[in-house]
Amino acid sequence: MTEGPTITTIAQRAGVSIASVSRVLNGLPTRPETERRVLQAAGELGYVPNSVARSLKSRRSNQVGFAIADIGNPAYLAMIREIQPLLKAAGYRLVLHSTGSDIAEEIEVLRGLGERYADGLIMVPLRMTEEHLKMFHAARAPIVIIGAAPDGAPVDNVRTDSRTGVRLALAHLHALGRRRIGFLNGPPDTVPGAARAAGWAEASRALGLPAGPELTEVGDFYRADGAAAAGRLLDRVPDLDALVCANDLIALGALDVLRRRGRRVPDDVAVTGMDDTDLATLAWPALTSVSLGSAERGRAAAGLLLDRLAGDGQGPRVVTVEPRLVVRGSTAGQETP
Amino acid sequence: MTEGPTITTIAQRAGVSIASVSRVLNGLPTRPETERRVLQAAGELGYVPNSVARSLKSRRSNQVGFAIADIGNPAYLAMIREIQPLLKAAGYRLVLHSTGSDIAEEIEVLRGLGERYADGLIMVPLRMTEEHLKMFHAARAPIVIIGAAPDGAPVDNVRTDSRTGVRLALAHLHALGRRRIGFLNGPPDTVPGAARAAGWAEASRALGLPAGPELTEVGDFYRADGAAAAGRLLDRVPDLDALVCANDLIALGALDVLRRRGRRVPDDVAVTGMDDTDLATLAWPALTSVSLGSAERGRAAAGLLLDRLAGDGQGPRVVTVEPRLVVRGSTAGQETP
Repeated sequence: MTEGPTITTIAQRAGVSIASVSRVLNGLPTRPETERRVLQAAGELGYVPNSVARSLKSRRSNQVGFAIADIGNPAYLAMIREIQPLLKAAGYRLVLHSTGSDIAEEIEVLRGLGERYADGLIMVPLRMTEEHLKMFHAARAPIVIIGAAPDGAPVDNVRTDSRTGVRLALAHLHALGRRRIGFLNGPPDTVPGAARAAGWAEASRALGLPAGPELTEVGDFYRADGAAAAGRLLDRVPDLDALVCANDLIALGALDVLRRRGRRVPDDVAVTGMDDTDLATLAWPALTSVSLGSAERGRAAAGLLLDRLAGDGQGPRVVTVEPRLVVRGSTAGQETP
Repeated sequence: MTEGPTITTIAQRAGVSIASVSRVLNGLPTRPETERRVLQAAGELGYVPNSVARSLKSRRSNQVGFAIADIGNPAYLAMIREIQPLLKAAGYRLVLHSTGSDIAEEIEVLRGLGERYADGLIMVPLRMTEEHLKMFHAARAPIVIIGAAPDGAPVDNVRTDSRTGVRLALAHLHALGRRRIGFLNGPPDTVPGAARAAGWAEASRALGLPAGPELTEVGDFYRADGAAAAGRLLDRVPDLDALVCANDLIALGALDVLRRRGRRVPDDVAVTGMDDTDLATLAWPALTSVSLGSAERGRAAAGLLLDRLAGDGQGPRVVTVEPRLVVRGSTAGQETP
């Protein structure tokens, strides 16, 4: 194990006194230029805030923030259900931030860490900007990102692999004999939207399926968007025999439209969702869905953060949760041999 | 408008100095006997903490707690969706407590208010104990109860009327010609369970329907409990032609069992839920459900609390949201004239 960055190495790199580093990392008033240099040096050295927050006992809030895009999406609920009891058992309250995936709001949450309203933060950003990265470096409390954190960011990271997830769905439909398969994606400028689009293109190619833009429709990650996108795609490609949807909410919207148009699921059109939320078993027919391990990711994120809060000072860690396909009625039937 | 209780009137009633009252209400150390007398006097006078929290600017947390039984129940989600943006606009973060309706945990949350982790609390307790009431009196921050708060409790209160809600469901099924109507309730020792049982008994009598215990099954307010209860009831009363369910999760469990047993909904058995959650439109057939105005109650609770946080010092207020029936496929069909 290599020695992590210390106040001394940060002071050397920043060309400031140890006292100045300590003041900045403790959130005390400092000249802006000093603060900038300390934070930059800390970032370059891969310093992860941890024991600092821990040692400042008097300033502990006993709270952890959880910032998600949409409280109405049960994929996040599955995470909350795991994260909350783990935090509670360790003496932390959960502060919920539903940001609507608005970047400015996410930055505001990150900035709030500076006021020490929370001893740590778990965040699920859908987009990753320069501003996020800057705030990660400036943060004075440990952060765990669920989703893809940029290389070198001073945060712990829980990932899944939704590219592979899309491949699992497509390979399943292909094995069932489906050949006119449409794709309903979320916004391609989000991290999950981009990953799913890449997975779609790769897997289509590998299976010898067409993957032209005429088979894809995009909308937001909500049910109404899924319905609208499914409607547009069915208008354009009426002979579709399957739909791969980028999350369960989109798939539910697609089921609504297929039912309204009298298309039988799965006989006429097979449908897959993604996230394997509680909604998948509520839908009728029940939805085949790619599990991205929401519960497992929640548990992993809580574990990583609690390690930091207990003083773990090692460099950024990455945990990856593998996707798996859960087959239900919306695609059920025998796979062709 | 009558003058509310003041530090002076509390001091007179408690037989202690004004300084002592101030110390207690400001959360400063005091002799236990003094504290007890002040809190008792404050309770008897109907004192509602508000401007105290407000004036202690240095100790404001800019947070509001929200304590619910089950983060997985979308009725609470509907509340969170309304409460969070209202609080955020006023500069407050939402701290979530999912208590599993455990009384000890709820008391712990109330006790936490004493540490000033939050400037106020919205709580949805399923049971109301002496201990709750004591903590309401001792609380040093305003509390809003969604559900039935005891008379004289120093809290604001948002109520609905689930007795009437059950009546609406039963009258609808009766008008559809159903006469063998079963009732799947939650635990009768909870406030909502008791209210629904009373509504069931009253409405059955008024409609001339049988309401004996053989037509009722109880379980917890979760889907699996609903399925188990529906199974037991159908075993005992195989010729049921309708089921009134005490919430949507129970109704979804009932739909699962009816589908497994090959009973058509609504042709053989009509089903009603309660809470009119997002799940009602996901179910197949879509679920007729009694709306108890979750969104409206969330908005009202946030409004009441924000009034307090802005310094409103009037006595406890009650807002009541009326239930209404939302008819969908699980009972659809013509009502008999």
